Amino acid sequence: MDNLIMNIRQLIRLSPEEEEFVSRLFTESVLKPGEYFLEEGKICRSVAFIEKGLLRYFVTQDGVEKTIYFSREGEWACNYRSFLPGVPSDTSIQALEETVLRVISYDGLQRFYREVAEGEKFGRVAIEQVFLTSIEQVRSLYADGPAQRYQQFLSAYPDLAQRIPQYHIASYVGVKPQSLSRIRKRLANSQGG
Amino acid sequence: MDNLIMNIRQLIRLSPEEEEFVSRLFTESVLKPGEYFLEEGKICRSVAFIEKGLLRYFVTQDGVEKTIYFSREGEWACNYRSFLPGVPSDTSIQALEETVLRVISYDGLQRFYREVAEGEKFGRVAIEQVFLTSIEQVRSLYADGPAQRYQQFLSAYPDLAQRIPQYHIASYVGVKPQSLSRIRKRLANSQGG
Repeated sequence: MDNLIMNIRQLIRLSPEEEEFVSRLFTESVLKPGEYFLEEGKICRSVAFIEKGLLRYFVTQDGVEKTIYFSREGEWACNYRSFLPGVPSDTSIQALEETVLRVISYDGLQRFYREVAEGEKFGRVAIEQVFLTSIEQVRSLYADGPAQRYQQFLSAYPDLAQRIPQYHIASYVGVKPQSLSRIRKRLANSQGG
Repeated sequence: MDNLIMNIRQLIRLSPEEEEFVSRLFTESVLKPGEYFLEEGKICRSVAFIEKGLLRYFVTQDGVEKTIYFSREGEWACNYRSFLPGVPSDTSIQALEETVLRVISYDGLQRFYREVAEGEKFGRVAIEQVFLTSIEQVRSLYADGPAQRYQQFLSAYPDLAQRIPQYHIASYVGVKPQSLSRIRKRLANSQGG
């Protein structure tokens, strides 16, 4: 069984017929590092399950890219604020590694919701999960200092610190790369002592 | 028809029997200004529809309250990060005005999802709506300066500027009250000229 079907089966029951039906709703797409799943200004017309790889979400402010989110293998990718109302995206989603996606269109997703017995439940529970991540991010942006935000990044994504360039992590944490270096040094010293 | 049922009917179909069933799942609760729907450290055991009134969400960091969100009549209130996993809340939700809530328990909500024909769809679409608000807030916290954040607050909630004390709005925008005063003066001058 592939990762996509396993992921869906963690949330709902699928009959063998539904499994086939669902598989056919998705098409495979491969991005090279640097290629885009979604570019700012375009409308997000699909949702992707990440079979393998890593995506970075960013917005551009006064010519500067601000990294706001990462998602990687086993997770779903989409800019819902473009996808749901069908308006141009203010966010870009770019591959940081070679990334294998299983992509479903807006109409395909509506068929999933309607034609799979527990399709609506899947939609609810899958969105609950990303919603939790998002409200935690809001809380952290208000309440946590940069060192705390970096430590939370490390504990949420222990493997990603090796896979993501430091300047993207610095942007996500909300500091300049030099400040992130200092935070990392202090952490290393306090763990060493 | 009451506001609660009208709100649900904007998202899904309800038969007259389902309407009665759903109404019975909710109980009414009235908060005076300053009273809490949820206190930090307690587990959020219910979701509330706000019939009337206004709630403020805040976290406490080094003894300072940081206002992270508002919700008001016609909207839903909950801390999902406590409610879904059943863990203590890191966020408090407090009434700023006399607030009339229609409250549903965790088990009641599961019955709604299961026993109403379009119950799961209601759950999906209702969470999609709050999710959109949340990811917009993340984008704004990364990309927007304080003046932009204040203007977005005004355009999203034109009536709330009069209903919420300025120091809570300043906290939400992420600045000191004096800075918010300056932003407001600049805006007033630029609109006047």
